[in-house]
Order: sequence, then C-alpha cells, then structure tokens
Amino acid sequence: MSERGPIEDPRYAEGGWRKRLHAIIYEADTPAGKAFDVVLLVLIVLSVTLVAMETVPGLPEWMIQLLWISEWVVTALFTVELALRMLVIKRPLRYILSFYGLIDLFSILPTWIAFFVPGVQALLTIRALRLFRIFRILKMAKMLDEMSELRHAFFASRAKMGVFLYGVAILVVILSALMYLVEGGPESDFESIPQSMYWTVVTMTTVGYGDITPVTPLGKLLAVVMMLLGYSIIVVPTGILSVEVSRAQKQTNTQHCDQCGLDEHVDEARFCHRCGAKL
Amino acid sequence: MSERGPIEDPRYAEGGWRKRLHAIIYEADTPAGKAFDVVLLVLIVLSVTLVAMETVPGLPEWMIQLLWISEWVVTALFTVELALRMLVIKRPLRYILSFYGLIDLFSILPTWIAFFVPGVQALLTIRALRLFRIFRILKMAKMLDEMSELRHAFFASRAKMGVFLYGVAILVVILSALMYLVEGGPESDFESIPQSMYWTVVTMTTVGYGDITPVTPLGKLLAVVMMLLGYSIIVVPTGILSVEVSRAQKQTNTQHCDQCGLDEHVDEARFCHRCGAKL
Amino acid sequence: MSERGPIEDPRYAEGGWRKRLHAIIYEADTPAGKAFDVVLLVLIVLSVTLVAMETVPGLPEWMIQLLWISEWVVTALFTVELALRMLVIKRPLRYILSFYGLIDLFSILPTWIAFFVPGVQALLTIRALRLFRIFRILKMAKMLDEMSELRHAFFASRAKMGVFLYGVAILVVILSALMYLVEGGPESDFESIPQSMYWTVVTMTTVGYGDITPVTPLGKLLAVVMMLLGYSIIVVPTGILSVEVSRAQKQTNTQHCDQCGLDEHVDEARFCHRCGAKL
Amino acid sequence: MSERGPIEDPRYAEGGWRKRLHAIIYEADTPAGKAFDVVLLVLIVLSVTLVAMETVPGLPEWMIQLLWISEWVVTALFTVELALRMLVIKRPLRYILSFYGLIDLFSILPTWIAFFVPGVQALLTIRALRLFRIFRILKMAKMLDEMSELRHAFFASRAKMGVFLYGVAILVVILSALMYLVEGGPESDFESIPQSMYWTVVTMTTVGYGDITPVTPLGKLLAVVMMLLGYSIIVVPTGILSVEVSRAQKQTNTQHCDQCGLDEHVDEARFCHRCGAKL
Repeated sequence: MSERGPIEDPRYAEGGWRKRLHAIIYEADTPAGKAFDVVLLVLIVLSVTLVAMETVPGLPEWMIQLLWISEWVVTALFTVELALRMLVIKRPLRYILSFYGLIDLFSILPTWIAFFVPGVQALLTIRALRLFRIFRILKMAKMLDEMSELRHAFFASRAKMGVFLYGVAILVVILSALMYLVEGGPESDFESIPQSMYWTVVTMTTVGYGDITPVTPLGKLLAVVMMLLGYSIIVVPTGILSVEVSRAQKQTNTQHCDQCGLDEHVDEARFCHRCGAKL
Repeated sequence: MSERGPIEDPRYAEGGWRKRLHAIIYEADTPAGKAFDVVLLVLIVLSVTLVAMETVPGLPEWMIQLLWISEWVVTALFTVELALRMLVIKRPLRYILSFYGLIDLFSILPTWIAFFVPGVQALLTIRALRLFRIFRILKMAKMLDEMSELRHAFFASRAKMGVFLYGVAILVVILSALMYLVEGGPESDFESIPQSMYWTVVTMTTVGYGDITPVTPLGKLLAVVMMLLGYSIIVVPTGILSVEVSRAQKQTNTQHCDQCGLDEHVDEARFCHRCGAKL
Repeated sequence: MSERGPIEDPRYAEGGWRKRLHAIIYEADTPAGKAFDVVLLVLIVLSVTLVAMETVPGLPEWMIQLLWISEWVVTALFTVELALRMLVIKRPLRYILSFYGLIDLFSILPTWIAFFVPGVQALLTIRALRLFRIFRILKMAKMLDEMSELRHAFFASRAKMGVFLYGVAILVVILSALMYLVEGGPESDFESIPQSMYWTVVTMTTVGYGDITPVTPLGKLLAVVMMLLGYSIIVVPTGILSVEVSRAQKQTNTQHCDQCGLDEHVDEARFCHRCGAKL
Repeated sequence: MSERGPIEDPRYAEGGWRKRLHAIIYEADTPAGKAFDVVLLVLIVLSVTLVAMETVPGLPEWMIQLLWISEWVVTALFTVELALRMLVIKRPLRYILSFYGLIDLFSILPTWIAFFVPGVQALLTIRALRLFRIFRILKMAKMLDEMSELRHAFFASRAKMGVFLYGVAILVVILSALMYLVEGGPESDFESIPQSMYWTVVTMTTVGYGDITPVTPLGKLLAVVMMLLGYSIIVVPTGILSVEVSRAQKQTNTQHCDQCGLDEHVDEARFCHRCGAKL
C-alpha cells in the first residue's frame, strides 16, 4: 500500500490546504507560486545585503540598530518559511537533509545561535547560498536545454582543456622556480617559491596587482616573456571551444534515414551517406 | 482638417524658408544638411573638451580666460541652434520634451544658470550626451541593419547571458564572503564584505589595482583560484555568442525552392543552386 | 628615347656590376640578396639594441666606450649601405625622398649630427623604423595574400567597428565625468576630468595600474560597474569579427558561371543562383 | 645476429622478471603499470611541494626537520626508481642520456650533492620537470590526435601569427622609444628605453603593475592610446585562429564522388549524399 498511501492521504486530497500551500511554496507555475518566489528572492537579496552591511566598520549607532532589527525580521520570516516547508512536504526529514534544506537551515541558524553565543556573525555569510534559489523562477529546465550546445562543446572539449590546464600548471611551476632563482633573496619580494607562484599567476592572468614586482633587469625580461605568454594563452581555450562549437553545429541536422536509421546528415543531403537510400 | 492642416500651412509650403531650414537642421541628405551636422559635431567635441579642460587645476590665467570666452561662444551658438530648431519644427513643445530636445536644453542651461548662480559648473558634463548626435551623420538605419546579425545573436543569447551573469554574481558574493573570513579584520585591507566584493571584481576582471591585496598564505591561495576563474570565465560569453552567430548564419535565408525543397540559398539567389528552378 | 633609355644604359647592361649590386641590395631572390638582407637585419636589431642600451643610466665606463664604438661602426656600415643604394638605383633622389629612403637617412643622420652638435641622441630611436625592412625577406606578397580573409573581414566590419568604438568613446566621456562628480575634489586623485578619463581607460581596458583608485563607497560601486562593462565589451569586436569571418568563409567558392560571369556560389551549387545556368 | 639478439636474450624471455618489471615501470597498460604511474605522480607532486616549502622563510624548527626527512625519503625512492629503470632497460646508458633520463638524474643529484656540498638546494627546482611524466598516464597519443584540428589550425596560421607578432614587436619598440622621449629623464620612472619597453609590455598586455606610471599629461595620453591598442590587439590572433579553424573544418574530408563530382562528405560517408553513388 505504500505506493498508493501518500496519494490517498486526506491531507493531500484535491483542494486540501497542504496541497495548495505545497504548490505555492515548491512550484512556480501558479501566479501565487511565482509571487512567493519573487518575495523570497527580494528577501534573500535583502538579507545578503544586510549581512554585508553589518561588516562595514564605523557605522552610526542608528544604522547598527536598524540592521539589527532588519536581521531579526528576515530571520523570523525565513524561520516561518522553513516551518511551512517542513509542514507541507511529505518527508520533512528528507528535505531538511537535502541541499536546499541545509541551506535553509544554515541561513537562520547563525542568527539564532548568535542570540545565545555571541561572535558567530560571520556564519551569516552562508545565507548567500540561498541566492541559488532564484534558478527555480528562471525555468531552469528550458534554460539548460538552450545551453545544451555550449555544454556539449564544453563536455566534448574536457580532455583538451585538461591537457591545456595541466600544461599551464607545469609552466607556472617551472617559471615560478626560475623567477625565484633570478629575483629571490631575503631582501626581495620573491621571498619563497610559493610567493613566486602567487606572483606568476597574478602576472600571467594579467591581473597585475603590483604588490610584488621584479627589480633586476633579468627578472624584468623574464616577466615580459611571462606576460606575453599569459596574454597569448587565452587564445587556446577559445580556439578549443570554437572547434567544438562548429563541430556541434555540423551535427545538428535531424534528417532521418528510413532504411538504416542514421540521423546525422549534412543539411543539403538527399541520400543517406551510409546506406545510399533516398532520404 | 487637422490631418491636412500642417501640409497646407503656407509656412511649410514648397520653397518656404522654414521648410528649407528644417531640411538643413533635421536632415542629413542635402549638402547643406551634412555641412550643418559636421559643424555641429565639431562644436560638440569642442564644447566637451572645454568642459573637461575647465576642471584641470593650476591652469594659467590667460587659459582660464580663453576657456571662459570659448564657453560663452559655444553656449551662444547652441542657444541659437536650439532657438532655430524650435522655430522650424511644427510642435516645438513636443521637441523640447523629447530625448534630444532635453539634451539640447541641458547642454546650454548650466552655463546660463552659472551666470546667475555660481557653483554648478559640473552640470556642464551633461553636454557630453550631445555626442550621441553624431549617429545621424553615420546613416544609422543602414548601420544598424548591418549589425543586425550581431544584435540578433545578442538577443537570442540574452537568456544564456542572464544565467551566466547570475551565476557570476552568486560566485562573487560567495567568494567575497569567503575572502572576508580568511583575510578580514580591523587591521586588514579587507575591512568589510562590500570592500571584499570590490576587491573580488577588481581581481576577477583582471583589473588588479593593487590597492587591496591578500597578505595571508590562505588568502593568496584563494586569490590565485579566483584569478584563474576570472581569466577562464571570459571564454563562456564568447562561446555563447559564437554559437548564436553561427546559428544566425545558418538562418539568414529563408527562400524556399518549390521544385526540390532546398531551403538554404544565398541572399541574392534568384534560381535554386541545386535544381536550377526559378525561386 | 626616354622609355628605352635606362634599359640600354650600359651601366645596367646584363652582367653590369650595377645591375648585379642592384639585385643584391634591392631584391631577395638570389642567395647573395638573401644574405645581404640577413646581415642588414642583424645590423638593424643590433643598432636598435645599442640605442636602447645607451639610455640605461649608471653603466660602467668600458661599456659606454664599447657602445660608442659600436654605434660608429653601425653608422659607418649604414652610411656605406645608403651610398651604395644611391649609386646603383636609377633615380637616387626619388629613392632618398621615398619612405624607406627617409628611414635610411634618418637612421644615420642623428649620429652624424651628434658628432657636431651634442644632445640629439634621442633621435637615434627613429632607427627602430628600419625594422620594417624585414618584411622584404618574409615574401610579403604571399603573406598578405594568405591574410586576405582576415583583412577582408576587418574591412567588411569597419563600419560596425567604427560604431562600436564611437559608442565606447561616448561611454568613456560620460563615465569619466560621472566619476569626477562622485570622487573628484582638490584632495582626490580624480583632480580633473582628463585625469578621470585616463583612469577610466586604465580601468575599462583592465590594465589597472592602481596609481589612481576610488576611495568613496559610491566611487567603488561605479568602478565595479565600469570594470564589468570593460570586461564584457571585449566580446563585441570578437563577435563582429567572427560574423565577418564566417560570412567570408561562405563566399570563398570559386565556381564560375559561364553564362552570366558570377563567381560567388556556395560550395555545393550545381546551378548559378543568378541566371539558373548549369555550372 | 644483433637484430635478433635482444629478443632471444633469456633475461627478456616471456615471463622473465625483467620483462614484467619493464612493463610495470615503462608502460601504463597493465593495472600494476597504472598504479606505479599514479604512485610516481603523487611522489612527484609531493617532492615539488617540498622544494617549494623549503624556500619559505621563518618556518618553525619541527617543520624544517620534517621537510628535511621527507626530502631524503623522496630522494631515496627516486634513487631506487632510477636504479630499477637502469636495470630493466636494454640500453641503460642510452636511457640516462635521454630527456627523461636526464630529468630523473637531475631530480636526485641535487640532494646527493647537497649532502657533501651545501648551498645547492636551489637546484632542486629542476625536479619540477619530472611533472612532464604525467602525460604518459593521459594516453598522449589519443589526446594529441583529438587536438589535431587545433594543432593543424595553429600550424596553418604560423606565418600569419609570425607577421602579427613581428608587427607587435616593432610597435613595442617604437612606442617604448616614444614614451621614453615624452616621460623620460633622470628623475622619472622611465629611466631608460629597456625600462620603457618593460613598461610598454606591462601596459599593452593589460597586466598594469603600477610600479611605473606616466605622470605628464602627454605621457598619459600616449598611455591611453597604448592601452586601447593592447586591448584591441587580442582580437587579431583570435580572428586568425578562427579563420583557420573554420577552414580546417571545411577540409576535414577529401572523399570525391566519381559520379557527380561532389567533394564535401562527412568523414564516415560511404555514399554520396547528393547523387547516392557509392564512394
């Protein structure tokens, strides 16, 4: 009976309040469900802003008070939301241990804990993870389907990308060691190989903070080579991806051969290229 | 009579000075109209340069005088131009409340106001908006038509770009919070999460000012990961766009051959290139 | 007789030393001609290195001496070369007033002038222009022919690129003015609008020196928007170019229609799409 | 007998321990061979990490001790591995003088030398080269085959890339000299042309350390032009590559149809897709 049980459970009968609440909270098809998601989204963005604002030093007293009150309002609303979610779902424990359930829990827990134990305000930052919720509104299924070509291209190019990244990693290690040998020393900014690796990535990704810079002529020459390398390297993944994209484009044809069942034909094909049958 | 009125209005009759002035000022087809636009363009660039130069501190006295005189000459010319525009158009009030009318007004208003009330020189910067005028010369219609494929690709990829940007925003928030936890503190450059967000964008876009830099080993490691992420991320929008561009390329022609059913023809085709039938 | 004159001029007769020297100096087809070009190239690179080295402060005395001697050796060789070029060419005056002739002249003139008038060492940098000579070796004709597709794509996209660059220029002006209003002041780094424009370009091209950075929260927010804009903008020219490249690819077919003379057909065409004739 | 000798050598007979060890050490086909490669990879990454960690200043005494012990363990294991490699291979001397043999030797030699002669710890960085070994696991042959299109595109575009890079090099030299003339001086950061070249590359690759920045208005104007140039230039190699990629896509098949003369077929085609004839 277990497979029929929940369906016949009177609490989930057609028109039951739980069923209606379930549709509002967990689905985005009805107007009420969409409104719920939008309100939740605004609350999430607001709560993330609150968490960020609370860390700004030197705020005036009235603002700290305002933030404190807003924090409790948001937490109260999130607590009510979580309670409702637990109430209308068939397996509350399973939900609370799922990815979104844990995010829900962690986004209210820090405030409650801070009520008793001060000093864990920083945990509030986990609330940012609630932002992932927005994807439900955006009709993810359709969206990911639209991105399928790009995902396919990425997937098809993963081996090449791996070889490329591995090569870059080796290059970074060797160039960092070289730079340490050239520039290194107790007085220098390049005080160790890990430090030198940090500088190499800062340089080759063209970020270039300038907190560490080469000072010897040879070091500058090596830095110039590394910059040019880093600047050129971006072309490779773009090239890999565009190869895959145009290959994927070629295979999008859907003409079907009745005789041998082959689906992939070039656009202008009139005969199947495998069995020679007329399409 | 309203629909015939303006046409029969003697002030706009064939050869009327208003009509001729209207053609010169509002159109770019006649030589006089083109000359008017070029003179206006030179004046606009000149006036923007004036506005910028006026803000440079420590200029010699004679230069300040020169800038002051030039400013008034330019303002006078723009005032005359606006007056003429109002005079030759059929609905002056409608023009002054349109986008370009407001720009015209705002580009002379600050100087006139500053004549009576000093201290609003900064408003002169709105004059920069007059630069948009140049598009009229460039035969925008044809131009935007040429860019239609790219616009189409952008439009077609807006959902994917949205998903991408949303993902990046979430990433920035989470990484900023993480970096604040790792590097933050009252003595650190990472004094708050908003500050940390600013640093994250500076790093992931590879701008890398260096006004804020990580100092702890763990912070540097996290920064390295973020740089590599930021450096790789640029590939995604390029990939999205190139998928759309090649898809758009495929769909640029919809001429159908009745005889053999081929759909893909070049734009200027009059005969089917496969069976030779007239399209 | 003028049109036959130079050919019958005995000095340019088959086997004449002038003719042979002309082939060596001005052409790169014979082994001697190639060797001459390579020697010249080495000399050019050497002379540029000399010019650069001479500007380094704090060099030891023996190195300054060495550089001084090398400089005179190079200048003497270049003078001899120019004299030979003048000698073997039919119209020496026309050569010396041509682009390469002027480069030849300017690359030796500064040293000779400095011999009499000290303090014009800096003019030596013009010698760098001699580097353009290398293109002769690389068989430019074939090379540029190979690059024709890209050149064609650039040429075809010039209008779009113009619109794009114009839009970016307006954006830079407006954002600079805005940033000046937000951050500017006598104490600030953003001391004037031109200064602010410099910062805007430094930021939007993701160079990010860090010599000027925003300090107010609003300025940082605006800077973040500008960085994201600048980071995204790179996608547009790439997109424009890739549209043109794939369009150019489509038109590379060389099938010729005998009836109407049209050359551009898609690859699989069997009938001319203009007149319907069989290809 | 020399060509049969090694095969009949009883030491390499079917089932001999040398043969089995040879398969484990030099090949990655068997489970034992793969496990050996993975263990080796872990050891290599560990040893590189050790080398990097040893350069960090201010480590606690127990950590220095731990690093010292780990270093000797790794060296001992690498020494054993090299000894085994020498033992099971037919031509030990040829292996030790090969690329990988020299890397093997250099990666243990420094530690052994440091045992007798202190102060050559830095040589340990050569060990990073051992990382190249990982490619054996990744089944390089298949991988490189997958990357053949991109390699082909790179190879086909090498002449254009050369012309492009040469043009960039000339641009850098000329702009550096110009910047030195504008900004240079004994008090300035632009103290010499080589220094100016370093700055030019830092700027045009958009790295932008900020250790050297222009201070004069003219210098800043020139810097702005250089940044925009550097930012635009990245489009060219991407364009070159994408031209080659799409050309390569077009040429991937050369099957010719005898009946209708069509040349473009997909790779796996056995029948012409236009006329249905057997290929």
